[in-house]
Parts: sequence; structure tokens; C-alpha cells
Amino acid sequence: MGATILDKQTGRAEFRVFAFNKKKVELLLKNAAGETVVPMSEEEPHIYSALIENAAQEMLYKFRIDGEGDFPDPYSHFQPEGVHGFSQVIDHQKYQWNDQGWKGKDLSELIIYELHIGAFTPEGTFRAAAERLDYLLELGVNTIELMPVTQTPGKWNWGYDGANLFSVNKNYGSPDDLKYLIDRCHQKGLAAILDVVYNHLGPEGNYLPAYGPYFTLKHATPWGAAVNFDDQYCEMMRSMVLDNVRYWLEEYHFDGLRLDAIHSIKDESPTHILQEISSTAKKTAAALNRRIWLIAETDENNVKIINPPDKGGYGIDAQWMDDFHHCVHTVLTGEKQGYYIDYGRLEDLPKVYKNYLYTGEYSQFWQKNRGSDASRNPGAQFVVSIQNHDQVGNRAGGERLGALVDFPSLKIAAGLLFFSPYIPLLFMGEEYAEKNPFLFFTDYEDPKLKAAVSQGRKEEFKAFGWDNFPDPEEDSTFFSSRLTPRENWDEQNKQMFAFYRDLITLRKSHPALSNLDKENTEVTVDKESQLVEIRRWHGSVELTALFNLGENDFPLPASKGKQIFNAGWKKYGGNREGDSDVLEKKGMIVLESTNGL
Amino acid sequence: MGATILDKQTGRAEFRVFAFNKKKVELLLKNAAGETVVPMSEEEPHIYSALIENAAQEMLYKFRIDGEGDFPDPYSHFQPEGVHGFSQVIDHQKYQWNDQGWKGKDLSELIIYELHIGAFTPEGTFRAAAERLDYLLELGVNTIELMPVTQTPGKWNWGYDGANLFSVNKNYGSPDDLKYLIDRCHQKGLAAILDVVYNHLGPEGNYLPAYGPYFTLKHATPWGAAVNFDDQYCEMMRSMVLDNVRYWLEEYHFDGLRLDAIHSIKDESPTHILQEISSTAKKTAAALNRRIWLIAETDENNVKIINPPDKGGYGIDAQWMDDFHHCVHTVLTGEKQGYYIDYGRLEDLPKVYKNYLYTGEYSQFWQKNRGSDASRNPGAQFVVSIQNHDQVGNRAGGERLGALVDFPSLKIAAGLLFFSPYIPLLFMGEEYAEKNPFLFFTDYEDPKLKAAVSQGRKEEFKAFGWDNFPDPEEDSTFFSSRLTPRENWDEQNKQMFAFYRDLITLRKSHPALSNLDKENTEVTVDKESQLVEIRRWHGSVELTALFNLGENDFPLPASKGKQIFNAGWKKYGGNREGDSDVLEKKGMIVLESTNGL
Repeated sequence: MGATILDKQTGRAEFRVFAFNKKKVELLLKNAAGETVVPMSEEEPHIYSALIENAAQEMLYKFRIDGEGDFPDPYSHFQPEGVHGFSQVIDHQKYQWNDQGWKGKDLSELIIYELHIGAFTPEGTFRAAAERLDYLLELGVNTIELMPVTQTPGKWNWGYDGANLFSVNKNYGSPDDLKYLIDRCHQKGLAAILDVVYNHLGPEGNYLPAYGPYFTLKHATPWGAAVNFDDQYCEMMRSMVLDNVRYWLEEYHFDGLRLDAIHSIKDESPTHILQEISSTAKKTAAALNRRIWLIAETDENNVKIINPPDKGGYGIDAQWMDDFHHCVHTVLTGEKQGYYIDYGRLEDLPKVYKNYLYTGEYSQFWQKNRGSDASRNPGAQFVVSIQNHDQVGNRAGGERLGALVDFPSLKIAAGLLFFSPYIPLLFMGEEYAEKNPFLFFTDYEDPKLKAAVSQGRKEEFKAFGWDNFPDPEEDSTFFSSRLTPRENWDEQNKQMFAFYRDLITLRKSHPALSNLDKENTEVTVDKESQLVEIRRWHGSVELTALFNLGENDFPLPASKGKQIFNAGWKKYGGNREGDSDVLEKKGMIVLESTNGL
Repeated sequence: MGATILDKQTGRAEFRVFAFNKKKVELLLKNAAGETVVPMSEEEPHIYSALIENAAQEMLYKFRIDGEGDFPDPYSHFQPEGVHGFSQVIDHQKYQWNDQGWKGKDLSELIIYELHIGAFTPEGTFRAAAERLDYLLELGVNTIELMPVTQTPGKWNWGYDGANLFSVNKNYGSPDDLKYLIDRCHQKGLAAILDVVYNHLGPEGNYLPAYGPYFTLKHATPWGAAVNFDDQYCEMMRSMVLDNVRYWLEEYHFDGLRLDAIHSIKDESPTHILQEISSTAKKTAAALNRRIWLIAETDENNVKIINPPDKGGYGIDAQWMDDFHHCVHTVLTGEKQGYYIDYGRLEDLPKVYKNYLYTGEYSQFWQKNRGSDASRNPGAQFVVSIQNHDQVGNRAGGERLGALVDFPSLKIAAGLLFFSPYIPLLFMGEEYAEKNPFLFFTDYEDPKLKAAVSQGRKEEFKAFGWDNFPDPEEDSTFFSSRLTPRENWDEQNKQMFAFYRDLITLRKSHPALSNLDKENTEVTVDKESQLVEIRRWHGSVELTALFNLGENDFPLPASKGKQIFNAGWKKYGGNREGDSDVLEKKGMIVLESTNGL
């Protein structure tokens, strides 16, 4: 489907499109001389095709349906004029890859860095991001996760308003620029994950309904009609999604996909589309001889998602575990709004190092029993974070955790993260305690939609009593959400960066931390003193991380091992050097011991 | 929940009810002297209870909610005044059972007889049905399946408009009368299955919404709002359904439940309610030390329903397989309307003796790919029929198969049924070629609903060009749907009964038929000559059933064995006696051979 160059020399290209129950479908070509209309033939029911000889490469085109409207290609790989404009033929053979030999990484070794291309650098491009990879290597992360990169309306957008599934966002560069970024990653030993959205399409520039029944009212979603995975004529959407999975892995060499909000992917078919996505990714990995992972975003605490198909699961490799974030966030901030009502107990911490927190218990927010038992699922099936684009950006003020808790508590949060037997995910800027917010920003082209989004955001937060916060549609909202260039960092930024860098080094190099065995993890809390102890071990080596969330200093127990790390050291913004005899308030100390545990 | 007699001697009874977010719930008692209001206390959030001393047995009661309305008990076991009236306390200790030692039957030996209590006998009662069991024994079936028996509006109803889940329909008798029927069944070696409806409640007399969020708009069903199995406060409905499963098995000694239209039971919880129903039934069976089965009605061809939980299934024992019915029906009738558009090919027959017909292929009626692979699921997981209440009664004219095909073809249909490696289900009357239709009949009490149902039925069938058929609300529609008493049978009725009786005897007694091994089944068809051959074998014994659906006689192959059965014998309405040298047009002959196959 879409435009495929068959012969580079002669310029022969094939155009294929699905258009359901139409009378006439034509190919509209555009070049400097003007527009040409080429008839398309219905090669099989509802599938139209045309062969063009001497087609200029990177030609612009649309499809004309029943003579009534011209629409971008649902399979468009590039929209140089934006979501409403012409699609462009892309030559995927052009880019010369230099990542031969790259085999990917094991899921269990990932340390993920989530970033938004537009806000990660001042330039906001794939090329600019590619120039910052050494910084990430210095930090120690080994995987980047790109927020969605398909074409969205206007100058900027988080990415979840993509108008189709295949285009590369022109605001960030060209398809080749994206390939360059991934290629550079691989050359430097970094893996790359792409956030893909199969649960809805953006409200502007989505022309799929002009082509056929890609959506259905059979199910309701937060975005209205559901993507049609199980209603009449669902095969076109199903195959489009599977094509898309292969496309990002094959043409762009991505190492994995993060599947956005899968709880809104509604499918009652005997084989759930997620299971087909999973088997497609596995087949692609085998064909490419690379490790490839699928990571689901879900709030459902349902092990079916990550269990293998022979146990009735969907076979997704891993999932985001929000319970971990919510536990840490609420324990440190004391917040109770929204879904945080279900969290905030220090004594919940031990469970979320072994399982979901909600494994069938009644949830006040959900107002029903929530979750299933994940105690037997390995730690490498869970991605956890203490900040991410959603948890920061879906706040009215886009406050990062550092705007809510003091500097020592921010370090405790990071310590709790890296001592978990799960895959850690950092949200860009977290590593140096970025002070800029990460706000929800949009730039719709349709004036009605612009007004509706601004108004909708106000309504949404009125319930929380928040009425004075940045308008998503204001340019300043985007600008204030960009990262602070390193040359402008203050002392605390540098201290936090050092703290993260050293903690990541410890996490990667120490066998007690680099294994993700939940069985080799023991968390205990002393609620009254607000102390948390995390023991992680491997063989005869053990690390004990002691956290003091309270307001009192406590003498350190003598016998637990050698002090190898202290959040209170001066280089991390504290007052100490070397060994300490107290666990300071808001402090964190790591002890190492071997043998005789 | 509901009314429970705690002490028969003193008349002590407890009343408990779930009422969500109410201010005041009271118990309204009614006797000859008038009505009494008793306060109820909220023993835990949303659960109200009251203890009554010296309560008369079989006392009438309702619950009064916030002083605004009096409603029947959602757990009412009997509604002597109908769906809108008072509930009655039922003493389940009163009935003296005589089925001690009954252990149930193996799924694979079942021959099911589906019946509607109201139309099965002229009296239309449980007691009258109990007097007809010897007739069923004579026929040879060993299991009765009762269409739903909960309280419905008016004088008659198919049963799928039950106003609650626990009441016994007063039109058919009392709870003790139903127990008597089951008890008699067990004493005579018959098992009993009850059709239960968990996908919706009837449109009249359903007072559950007055009590709490038993329904949700999260999902849509053909009946409107869905039963709430996964939305806020779903626990009450979930536990009510599980209580109901136990109730029919424990209090009424049913041997199994037929779960109506489970494709409309919408549940996105980590553990689907069907899986909980299954595990509840299994626990109950173990506690009662009886064999108990769950049989699902579903049109989804989804093996998840019948696969065990450790393979990600729901663990339901068996399911209806409509594909079998549709293949046989369309091959014999040539009908193409509605979903029959997907059937009608003689060459499909071999597949439906091994699997669903639709195992992922495109369906013109569903307009998408349909089904999953059931080739590895044993034959005893599928219940098949050539007629059932739906396939007959959902036709405008309620025509049984005998009204659509000639007498010899009717025998072919039965032969195809009993030679399948599946559990056969007969619809009452089928066994003697009943000529009365089985029409859709209702008798709503609400005049608006009466008019809407009559009108709706007309609209529904207008699409098929049918506009002259019985009105569901007319008394004559029910009366004309009752079975013809045996004393009024004509010659053909008697011949067909003999045919069914002998075929059932063969099915039960012959090892080649009584095993349900799909592996020991081979079906071949000759499309041109319209011949079907079904081979069934066990060890060295083989039966070959030859069917001639065409209009020409064919010479019989000599070598296939001894003729043991011929649909053309005089006793079955044909012209022959003894061995035949031809396979007559519309004929069926069974050959037996041993060794040297």
C-alpha cells in the first residue's frame, strides 16, 4: 500500500490505495508544471492501483476519490506540506546505513531515556538530537525512546495527534534525518524505541474516514469512535497497523515500539490485534536477526498483556507499571488528587518491588476491584519511572517532580527507581533536575479546534481548582517546555547530573543491581521513622540502600557493609565527604557487603 | 443476599440487600393484616440488613428505597404476583429430595432435549413436564435443557425477558415444583440443564437500576446498556451472577447451565466473568460431588471460550456450534437470507465435522474475517443441532425444518446430526416432525411495550420482505406454538418418532457413534451427485452412513458392509424392507463393517 519505487533508474513507481465502496479513485500528481490526474484501476475489490513510469523521485501526490475530494495517502511516508497537504514518494533505498552488525540489546539491560524531539534541543530536530548522543552516553543511559514522530498539525505537538501512521514529522526533519539519528545511536551503542499510537488518530488531518471504515462506533474511547479492529471491514486497519509495525522496524531500524495506551485498543476478535502485533514483531526480529521489543503503555494491571500466547496472553514483552510511579510520587509529595487517591502509603512500597500494587484490590479511583497478579512475571517485563511525559505534562502546570519536592527528596526518588528490579525510564531533563516545566502544547491549524483545546484544558482542570495555567495553544507554552542548554545549568543541575550518572554507573556495573531478579530484592519500611531499606543481591554480593524520608537523622547500623554511595556527598549537593555515621533526614546511603549475608 | 430463613422453628429470617448510595432502605412486609415497614441497618457500606423474628414462612416483602419506591428483591426466589409484585420468602429446606446417589453424566454421553416448559405440555407446568419423562426415556434422550425459568411479564414468554436472576416463574409452578421436575429426572436417569441469561435482563420488571449500578453504558449490547461486569461498582453484579450459578446447582440440583449469548457479556476485567463462572461451577461440582457442565451459546467461533484458563481460556466446558446447523440447514433448504448467505455449500460439510466452518475466513455476513481454529478441541466441547428454539423461532413464521423440506430430507438432517462427533441437541417436537410452528411469543404487561414489540417484529422482518406473520403479543401465537399431544399424532409423526428413537438407540449403543473422537470421523462429499458419506469408527468397528441429497437413485457399493439401517424402511415412512441395492434419492443407509477396513 502507498507509493513504492519499483525501479530507481526508470523512475517506475506503483501507487496502491484502499478505498471502500467508491466509484472512481484517481491519482493526483503534482510538480512544478502543475497537477496531473492519472486513472487508477480496481485490481481487487476496494484496492486501487496505478503504475507510473518516469516518475520523478520524491514526487508529490494525493488520491482523488469519486471526483469529490483530494486526500493525502493513508500510507504517506512524508507530508512536506503538513497534515492537509500532498504526500511525498519516499525512496527508502537512498539512505546508506552504517549500523551493520548492530544486534540490539537485552530487555533486562535497558536504561531508557524518553525524549521529545522538538523540546530536547533548541533546534528541535532529529539532526540536532543526533548531535547530543555523547551527552546521553556520558549520563549512562543506553536507550532512547522517542515520543511519536508522525506528522501532526502546526509547528509543534506532543506527537499523539498524528494524522496517519507512517509519515515522518516534517517539523523534525526528513525520513533520512530520522534514519541518521537511529543510525548514529546504533553506532554509539544506543538502542532506539519509538512511541506509536494505534488507539486513535489526531483530530486534525485524519483523512482515513474518507477512504473507508477505519473507525467504528462499536466501542467508545476517550477520543470518540474507536479504531476499527473488530467491526465490519476491520481487515484494512488491522493490516495497516501490522504494516506499520514492520515499517518502523525494517525501514528505520528501530529496536522496539512503545505502544501507546493500549487499554483503548478495543478488539473482541479471537486473536487480539496486540497479539498479532507481537507475532509480527517477533517474525520481523527473526528476519532481521536483531533483538526487538514491544512495550505497552497500560493502566490495567493485566498480566494477559505480557503473558505469552500459549498462556492466553498477547505476548507483549514488557509494560509500563504506573503503580510504581504513583507510589513513589505520592509518598514524596503527599498528593491525593485524581488517581493519586489510591496511593500515598509508605507501607505499599515493598509490594511494588514484587508486583503491581493493585492485584485485585478495590480501587477508590476506579471504584471497582483492579488488577491481576504479576508476582511470577519477571522484573524485565516492567518499565518504571519517577517522571514521564504524562505524569509531568498532564499536570496543569507541567511541574516536574523537582517543582514539588526538595532537592534531597528528588535524589531519594532516583534512588528508589534505580534500586528497583525493573527497567528504569527517565524523562529528559530529569537527570539534571530541569526546572523548566514540560507543558501540554499544541498548535492546531483549525481555529475551532484551537479554541476547543484551550477551552477544554481549562474545563478539565477546573475540577481540581486550577484555573491559571499556560494555554496549550500559546507559543510560549512550547518554548518554556524546552530543555535548558547545558551551558546554562546552575550548580544544582550539575550536582544532580553527577548523582544520576554515578547511580546509573552503579546500576549497570554492580551485579546486585544489574540483575532484575525480583526474588533477589527485599524492601522493608519503618513507617514511623519513615525509613526504607532496599536489599538487592546476586550470589554473595549484596547492596543495601537506606532511605530516610523523614525529618530526623538516624544513627547508621554498623554491620550492614561498606558505604559505597551517599546522596549527601558534596558532589551531589550535600554536606558530607566519605563515610557517615548517620543516615541524614532525606538522605540515602548505599552499603555493600559480600559473603555471610 | 435476599431473604434467608435462619430458624424454621422460630421463624427467624434475615433480609439483606445491596442499595448503592441510598439514604434509607426499609423492609416492607405484607400479610393478610396489611403492610409493615421495618427499618434496615447499613451493616457495611451499601449493604442493608434486617432480622425478623416470628416471620411467617413464605412471607411477602419488598424493599423501600429512600422512602420513594417499593421494589421487589433483586435476589427474589419467587414472585407470586409477577415481575412487579411482592417477593416471597422461600424455604429451601422444605423440599425432600429423592435423588441421592445421582452423580450426573459425562459430557460426551449427552443427548440433549431442549424444551419450553410452557409449550411442552398443554398444562405448561413443571409438574406436567415431570409426567412426560417416560416419553423422553422412550425416545432415548438423556438430558433435558429448560429454556429460562425465571419470572417474566405476563402469561407467557420464551424466558429471555427474565426480570431477575433467581425467581422461579410462577406461570410454570413453584420452586418446589421445579425441584420435583429435576428430582424426577434424576430418579429416571435424566440430567437437567438450565438456560441462564447473564447478558441482559428483560425490559419489564427489571428493578435492578433502582438499587445500584448493575448496568453500564460503557458497552453497548442489542438490549441497550450492558450488564455491568467491568465498570464502576461492578462487584455487586459480578457476585450476584456467581451466587446465581451456585444457586441453581445447589438448591435445584441442575446438572449444568447453558449460558445464553455470551458474546454480549462484555467484560474487560483481567479475569473475565465467564472464567469466574467456570471456576465457581467447578468448585460447586467438587463440593457437591456431581458432574456439572457449563455450555455457552456463542456465535463467535472463539476457542478462548472453551479452552482451559492455563491456556488463557475461560474454561467453559462446551459451546453451541451454529456453523453445523447453518451448513446442514442451507444445504437442505437452499436458503440464503441473513447469515445463511455464508453457507449453502455441500463441500463445506467435511470441515464442520472437524472444526468450525469459519476458522478465520472472510464472512460475507459479518463483513470481516471470522473465527479461530478448533481442530484440536475435542468433539465433546461442541453442542450441535439441526433445529433449536432460535433457529426455528426467530423466523417470522416460526417454521420448523419440516415446513421447509420434504419428509425424507428431514430424516437426512437427523442422520447428519447423530453421525456427528458432537453432542446432539434436539428441539422439542423435532423427534416426531411436529407440524406446529414455534413462534416468538410475548405477553408484556406494559401497553407501550406490547405495541413496541409487535411493531418492532414487523420492522425487523420487513427487510426480508415478510409482512404477514403472527403478532408475538397475540394469545393465538402462543397457543399455536404448543406441541401436538401424542394422541393426535398422524402417521408421519409416528414414523419420524420411530426413526429418531432407533437412530438414538444406534448412536448410544454403537461404539463407532458413542465415541466423540473427531479423529475417528471422515466425511466426504460428491458435489455433483449430491452424495455424502460419513465414516465413524472405533477400534475395528466402522459405520458408514451414506446420504443421497440428490434427485437420482444410485447403486449401492457392495463392499462397505452390512446394511443395518435404512431411512427408507416402511416403518420410517419409506417403501422398503430389508437390504436395498440402491441408495434412493433423498435416502440414507447405514452400513456396518468390522475388521479389515
